[in-house]
Amino acid sequence: MTELIYGRHASLEALRAARRTVQQVMLAEGTEEKEKGVIPDLIAAATQRGIPIKRVQRRMMDDLANGANHQGVILRADDYPYVELEEILILAKERNEKPFILLLDLLQDPQNVGTLLRTAEVVGVHGIIMQDRRSVGITSAVVNASSGASEHLHIAQVVNLVTAMRTLKEENVWLAGLDIGPNIVPIDRADLDIPLGVVLGSEGEGMRRLVRDTCDMMITLPMRGHIESLNVATVGAVALYAAWQARSWQGWAHATPAAPKN
Amino acid sequence: MTELIYGRHASLEALRAARRTVQQVMLAEGTEEKEKGVIPDLIAAATQRGIPIKRVQRRMMDDLANGANHQGVILRADDYPYVELEEILILAKERNEKPFILLLDLLQDPQNVGTLLRTAEVVGVHGIIMQDRRSVGITSAVVNASSGASEHLHIAQVVNLVTAMRTLKEENVWLAGLDIGPNIVPIDRADLDIPLGVVLGSEGEGMRRLVRDTCDMMITLPMRGHIESLNVATVGAVALYAAWQARSWQGWAHATPAAPKN
Repeated sequence: MTELIYGRHASLEALRAARRTVQQVMLAEGTEEKEKGVIPDLIAAATQRGIPIKRVQRRMMDDLANGANHQGVILRADDYPYVELEEILILAKERNEKPFILLLDLLQDPQNVGTLLRTAEVVGVHGIIMQDRRSVGITSAVVNASSGASEHLHIAQVVNLVTAMRTLKEENVWLAGLDIGPNIVPIDRADLDIPLGVVLGSEGEGMRRLVRDTCDMMITLPMRGHIESLNVATVGAVALYAAWQARSWQGWAHATPAAPKN
Repeated sequence: MTELIYGRHASLEALRAARRTVQQVMLAEGTEEKEKGVIPDLIAAATQRGIPIKRVQRRMMDDLANGANHQGVILRADDYPYVELEEILILAKERNEKPFILLLDLLQDPQNVGTLLRTAEVVGVHGIIMQDRRSVGITSAVVNASSGASEHLHIAQVVNLVTAMRTLKEENVWLAGLDIGPNIVPIDRADLDIPLGVVLGSEGEGMRRLVRDTCDMMITLPMRGHIESLNVATVGAVALYAAWQARSWQGWAHATPAAPKN
């Protein structure tokens, strides 16, 4: 199957990551003359990989992208290259790091999923696990909302999220579910410097009962004020950063070595 | 001027906060019979305030909301009630807390601004400061994206952000700008338990030069991976939570007293 990838950053990262075959790059007429930065990089990357570049009328691209904001760039590419769950664990081993995984339970909103992928890539998770039915997949809208982070990430789409969670537990990965409530450990009290899976529930419903019950611990973000909930991408961002900070920013080019632990 | 507020949570919070006059509540025909939770709360809040409720055809509401997802609820209300900068400082004093303020430099995307307002309300900032020209204001889309958090917040729209920053500095508020770079203090090394203004730059351009130069310190979120930037609402969320954590979750119902400082 062919998929369309649209947007400058999403397209550039798809070309850079080179994990899926790109059949064609479409550029809106006049685009590259007007712009500098991403577009020249994109043309260079396509040229290097021998991918044909076609000038297309902006109007035709609007139709192709179904009204989405394509910023003058659309790629025709193969489907998203999902990985198996095991490859995520292998990546952690290759990097010599404790597993650091994000699990999404039936999220629906492409913007939220995209934002979460972008944050996850930036903090260096080894992979994302999501269920293949009843949740949004890695669609064009998600790729775009992730600024192309999806193209660099290991993402496994599993038949049953709970089964995948049990597999992770057998591999000694601890599963921390994010939830709201007074009797839940606040995030700064949890030890996150462990082989970790961060589990997020869906926008409206939260985590399914069985997903929640399969978690090893529940953690919460403190909240005050009148609004009693946060955007799921916000919750995920704060949790992922807390977990990465607990790992002393492992892999950050400017990290200083952690003090030895007692 | 009359403004439309749409969406269930946005509408409910506008009624609860009661900071602007609401002329009319429009409900899509059949809405309240089908739903429980927010809609009955909304009807009760409107009835209590003596605000007329009108049943309207869903199609007419689609037209009114200009295609936005109104979820069957639209309010006709007065314009957003901005406050003066001074009222933000007064609120901090009334709460007996060190000022905790969010400053936005020319942000454009209603979704980002809304998500930031929602997080800001949840962590208990005393107010938000934004410039009135060249940035998005508190529009219907922002109110909706904030889940109604805007209705509970003190938001000042100033003619010149830099002038407002200088006023805050005279009041001994420290301004911490979020930026990317190797020579910037990572967020966990900065002392954020001070009278604080968190400054965020716009989506594409970042902070304007003069805004940056007016900050007292620059802080950064560590990043690894291929994607070299985060969504501004993500950056804001992590920064606001870090600042609130530095204040020992002050105001959180379940906070434990901070250990005495040396």
